Amino acid sequence: MTKTSAPRLTPLAAALPASVPFVGPEAQERARGREFAARLGANENIFGPSPAAIETMREAAAEAWMYGDPESHDLRRALSAHHGVPPEAIMVGEGIDGLLGYLVRLMVGPGDAVVTSAGAYPTFNYHVAGFGGRLETVVYAGNHEDPAALVTRAAETGAKLVYLANPDNPMGSWHDAPRVQAMINTLPEGTLLVLDEAYVEFAPEDTAPPLDIDDRRVIRFRTFSKAYGLAGARVGYAIAHPDLILAFNKVRNHFGMCRISQAGALAALADQGWLDHVVTQVAAARDRIGAIAQANGLSALPSATNFVAVDCGADGGFARAVLDALVARDVFVRMPFVAPQDRCIRISAGRPQDLDLFEAALPDALTAARAGG
Amino acid sequence: MTKTSAPRLTPLAAALPASVPFVGPEAQERARGREFAARLGANENIFGPSPAAIETMREAAAEAWMYGDPESHDLRRALSAHHGVPPEAIMVGEGIDGLLGYLVRLMVGPGDAVVTSAGAYPTFNYHVAGFGGRLETVVYAGNHEDPAALVTRAAETGAKLVYLANPDNPMGSWHDAPRVQAMINTLPEGTLLVLDEAYVEFAPEDTAPPLDIDDRRVIRFRTFSKAYGLAGARVGYAIAHPDLILAFNKVRNHFGMCRISQAGALAALADQGWLDHVVTQVAAARDRIGAIAQANGLSALPSATNFVAVDCGADGGFARAVLDALVARDVFVRMPFVAPQDRCIRISAGRPQDLDLFEAALPDALTAARAGG
Repeated sequence: MTKTSAPRLTPLAAALPASVPFVGPEAQERARGREFAARLGANENIFGPSPAAIETMREAAAEAWMYGDPESHDLRRALSAHHGVPPEAIMVGEGIDGLLGYLVRLMVGPGDAVVTSAGAYPTFNYHVAGFGGRLETVVYAGNHEDPAALVTRAAETGAKLVYLANPDNPMGSWHDAPRVQAMINTLPEGTLLVLDEAYVEFAPEDTAPPLDIDDRRVIRFRTFSKAYGLAGARVGYAIAHPDLILAFNKVRNHFGMCRISQAGALAALADQGWLDHVVTQVAAARDRIGAIAQANGLSALPSATNFVAVDCGADGGFARAVLDALVARDVFVRMPFVAPQDRCIRISAGRPQDLDLFEAALPDALTAARAGG
Repeated sequence: MTKTSAPRLTPLAAALPASVPFVGPEAQERARGREFAARLGANENIFGPSPAAIETMREAAAEAWMYGDPESHDLRRALSAHHGVPPEAIMVGEGIDGLLGYLVRLMVGPGDAVVTSAGAYPTFNYHVAGFGGRLETVVYAGNHEDPAALVTRAAETGAKLVYLANPDNPMGSWHDAPRVQAMINTLPEGTLLVLDEAYVEFAPEDTAPPLDIDDRRVIRFRTFSKAYGLAGARVGYAIAHPDLILAFNKVRNHFGMCRISQAGALAALADQGWLDHVVTQVAAARDRIGAIAQANGLSALPSATNFVAVDCGADGGFARAVLDALVARDVFVRMPFVAPQDRCIRISAGRPQDLDLFEAALPDALTAARAGG
């Protein structure tokens, strides 16, 4: 073989783009040559993890010479007690992103249909495309994902998976538990509901249907990245029937969990008082974002998450201009990818000092956007 | 759909076992109901990471609310300077295990041939099986992997990948750089050498061929898990031609890296003095393991790693009995999976106090094994 022979990628891999679902804020900062003053774009939890979790991770740093427990036994046992489901119904993984990849790999082969909403979570789509699945999309019903339309399309296409985020990202909207349960009850034969509940801790009490691990029609995804403030630790988990949970062991990176992160998540889960504190702070931040939007003649959408979609009142081009102008003023925000949701910009809940910066930048950003640059 | 319908796994996934390449020591401790006194089985670096890396991770714990940089920009830049290759030739991932999974996914489809040595790294085999690849194995030449036989089998089978660990795990043996370069130079057309150099920092100077990122025939894997003492942080990296490195972006979990781990690896890399200290300590530990083996009538194999394969002088059943007797005496060790290498047990380098426990337990363990229980 010569030094210049190209590796033989699989036909599927050769056809995939080397795409990135999201450009990280650090990459944007490097391109700008300047740091952001307010980091409000990635739905991170700037209120941070529990101080007890931070202290636990600090103590665990010296133990990083040991591999993490591949079974995440202690964390799964604690999650079991927290949720009232057996440990065998829980799989811990490298964030919901990592777990979604494993699930898609287990279930989706070339040409298999998968249903989601146009403009819903791009990383799920990335995994489906990455395993050769065929994405079928339905449009939002206003600012909400449309459970009935998702089920109908799943039936029409014989979809193996149908994705619903509840609450929704990027719009912050939500359905109540009876609506989601009705969706589960009407799923076509052979379709698994991928119920992404990354933001559920911020949502009203009646948002999540009861956990029912005997129900093989649904798999739930939760995370320590949002309400628990540990996005950088990469700890998510799935709850489902034990048979499906066991199947993750066929493909997952068994020694993939960071030991420090496992310890941090365990401590974060134990500090429900801090979680309550964060949820309260986030609710106050949502209200403040709404007030700032209103003061600038914009309308904030109701949100059950740690971010608010702000309707800029025109098309996607205008919202993009507002976003660019905010970024130019050192305020990192993001926006939906798809029309008509892309008339909005998406602001993550921040501390008062972060929202002060947003409040100060928004009028000028709107003026700049209206001036066309 | 009814609550009892089984999810439709892909045919490949349905056929895979829910296997675990390795059972972790924590799982063994839970099964035993007792902790190990000496943790010498997983080739972890009990001398630990650089104190500067620990301090950096402690400081980074409070920043865990932020996602890690998906480009691992700073770490890749530092690795670039360290190795004298451009950042575009480096991919950082969730340990070598995670990166091997991505590589196999990119290149191996159902039925594609992959060549390795019988008894080499099981996690690589796990990935190959997991993507439907066909494993072709060659036997070790004595205590060494056999580069010429690997190349011959690759040519015979049209293999897409051929795996070589240098130094080798589980035997600790190694080939010098000219031998490895000769293997590269004789690879058949279309075969990529997967050169796993997880232990190379412990090896003699002339073990690794020069890095040549223009050579598309080989991809190198390195890690912070072994000499840098950060197994629990999950940071590995690949070095290859930029075209192949870029392809990882097609399939990898872009936001999969722990932010604390990225910071720790960066600090560990900067502290080459600690690395030298660890390598010296490990060399002393290897010598001590050899002396303990000799004092018990066993022979230790030469090692270029942080572990020593100790030939127990009989068959795999006897070595297994010795291992079980050590485990019963609270000394965690492992052993090769395949004959004839499985006549050995594998002892990770430990601190003097760890090896004191091994030294104390071995005579009784041998007695117990010879007594048949």
